[in-house]
Amino acid sequence: MGAAKFLRGLVHRIDPRELAVVVNTGDDEHFYGLHVSPDIDTVIYTLAGVINREHGWGLEGESFNALDALGRLYGKPWFNLGDRDLATHLYRTERLHSGARLTEVTAELAARFAVKSRILPMSDDRVHTFVKLKGRPAIAFQEYFVRGRARGAVEAIELRGAQKARPTREVLDSISRAAAIIIAPSNPFVSIGPILALTGMRPALKAVRSRVAAISPIVGGKTIKGPADKMMRGLGHEVSPLGIARLYRDVAGLMVIDIIDHRYLEPIRALGLNAIATDTVMTTPDHAARLADVVTRALEV
Amino acid sequence: MGAAKFLRGLVHRIDPRELAVVVNTGDDEHFYGLHVSPDIDTVIYTLAGVINREHGWGLEGESFNALDALGRLYGKPWFNLGDRDLATHLYRTERLHSGARLTEVTAELAARFAVKSRILPMSDDRVHTFVKLKGRPAIAFQEYFVRGRARGAVEAIELRGAQKARPTREVLDSISRAAAIIIAPSNPFVSIGPILALTGMRPALKAVRSRVAAISPIVGGKTIKGPADKMMRGLGHEVSPLGIARLYRDVAGLMVIDIIDHRYLEPIRALGLNAIATDTVMTTPDHAARLADVVTRALEV
Repeated sequence: MGAAKFLRGLVHRIDPRELAVVVNTGDDEHFYGLHVSPDIDTVIYTLAGVINREHGWGLEGESFNALDALGRLYGKPWFNLGDRDLATHLYRTERLHSGARLTEVTAELAARFAVKSRILPMSDDRVHTFVKLKGRPAIAFQEYFVRGRARGAVEAIELRGAQKARPTREVLDSISRAAAIIIAPSNPFVSIGPILALTGMRPALKAVRSRVAAISPIVGGKTIKGPADKMMRGLGHEVSPLGIARLYRDVAGLMVIDIIDHRYLEPIRALGLNAIATDTVMTTPDHAARLADVVTRALEV
Repeated sequence: MGAAKFLRGLVHRIDPRELAVVVNTGDDEHFYGLHVSPDIDTVIYTLAGVINREHGWGLEGESFNALDALGRLYGKPWFNLGDRDLATHLYRTERLHSGARLTEVTAELAARFAVKSRILPMSDDRVHTFVKLKGRPAIAFQEYFVRGRARGAVEAIELRGAQKARPTREVLDSISRAAAIIIAPSNPFVSIGPILALTGMRPALKAVRSRVAAISPIVGGKTIKGPADKMMRGLGHEVSPLGIARLYRDVAGLMVIDIIDHRYLEPIRALGLNAIATDTVMTTPDHAARLADVVTRALEV
């Protein structure tokens, strides 16, 4: 998750209390009757400093005894839920059942994990990301990504419910008030895509476009991690920062690309965006912090 | 739980496949949004040979990492739920939400634990046992028993919902077909009481009364474990096998009491029940097996 790496650097450069993170919920899924929000949890656990860095998901030092037992009741599990992680899902599920909004529940969880930034689900409405592989029926994102290990040629992404879903007022407020908005180097179709697909989201960003920067997840023709490059190709896009810029040109005023891709600066500018090239590969939190620094400065924050 | 100890012996004396266990669900409670059926689980775990014998509840070799994490979200827990035990509650809760009857779910769980006997919740309707302590409002059974450690003077037991609740057809069928029915040496008010309080249960047992035996949980003026003796006293009953016999005289044809209490044989017979005295203290599974033997023989099974 490029966003998590970037956030880890960003909170070294800005006061975490001034940060609001708008998080994709199209990946949310129900397992064993529990509402699991993988992206929200990754952001909370990352900012709380308790994430398992090796995996990029879940809690560090986690045990999986409940999952073992669930496997005996349900059959072999394909989605990992740690024992302590389960508490998060139980809490979320119970609060949602009792009528709380996902936004409220997420704020409660973030507070319990002592996260100082605001963690905002993109919407309280349900959006469900489906992936259509060649010659097969569409499957839910987690089935594609975790169960299927992101294999297979992606033909289409379906963002079910997105047209009826709206960003929360908390999300719209933070966008209109933000000194800077950064689109993290995440998958443009399944991580950023669901957010942009919400009714009213693109207009909200367009209104503040000069304060919006996007960091390209494509570096040297591929992604650092994850299937974004394969998806771009499969969906008929150019696998380059220019391809990314085309996806974001209406909502972002600045494109941040890797130094290795500097030849794309001019073509991107020709699309009507500002563009800068810098080191975007976040090998360490320090790299991430420097990238955050460059981006915020370029936005003249 | 006297019933669990007795069951452990009973299945050494009879074919487990011929045993149906009717279980109290008045203790059922919701924790963290999960439907927990403590008595059902104790019976399943006992017959599966996986119960923690030291505690008398939960699974042996259990971890409590999820509960630790839940404590951080909800505050200090007072009801213990182990990590593997959580799987049982998750399964039950999800199946109930999807419309299954508790009877079906329990059969599924028992099958997954390779339990050969039929485990029958007393009812698919909700009965909720409340305990009224002197000078305090009534509290749910688990709050009294686990949170309050069964302390305080019990003034009344409220079996909320019992009058509207009915035994399942599975329970009524096994009662009418059984060669023998044994009321285990359990708490007559909060373990057996909710079962007998169901609409139609006492008539169903009366119809087969000569095949019903009850084992006294009171031995030498007190219970081996648990608050039944204190409750009897608080509720104005004589704390003796005779007091027990008075509670069951309409539904049981045979009263089984401890040898130490042999002086109660005649007074019990005077109530119109058969009575035998034997060693009822189940220190080992072997004691329990011998007790099962004596009871089934006395019923001429």
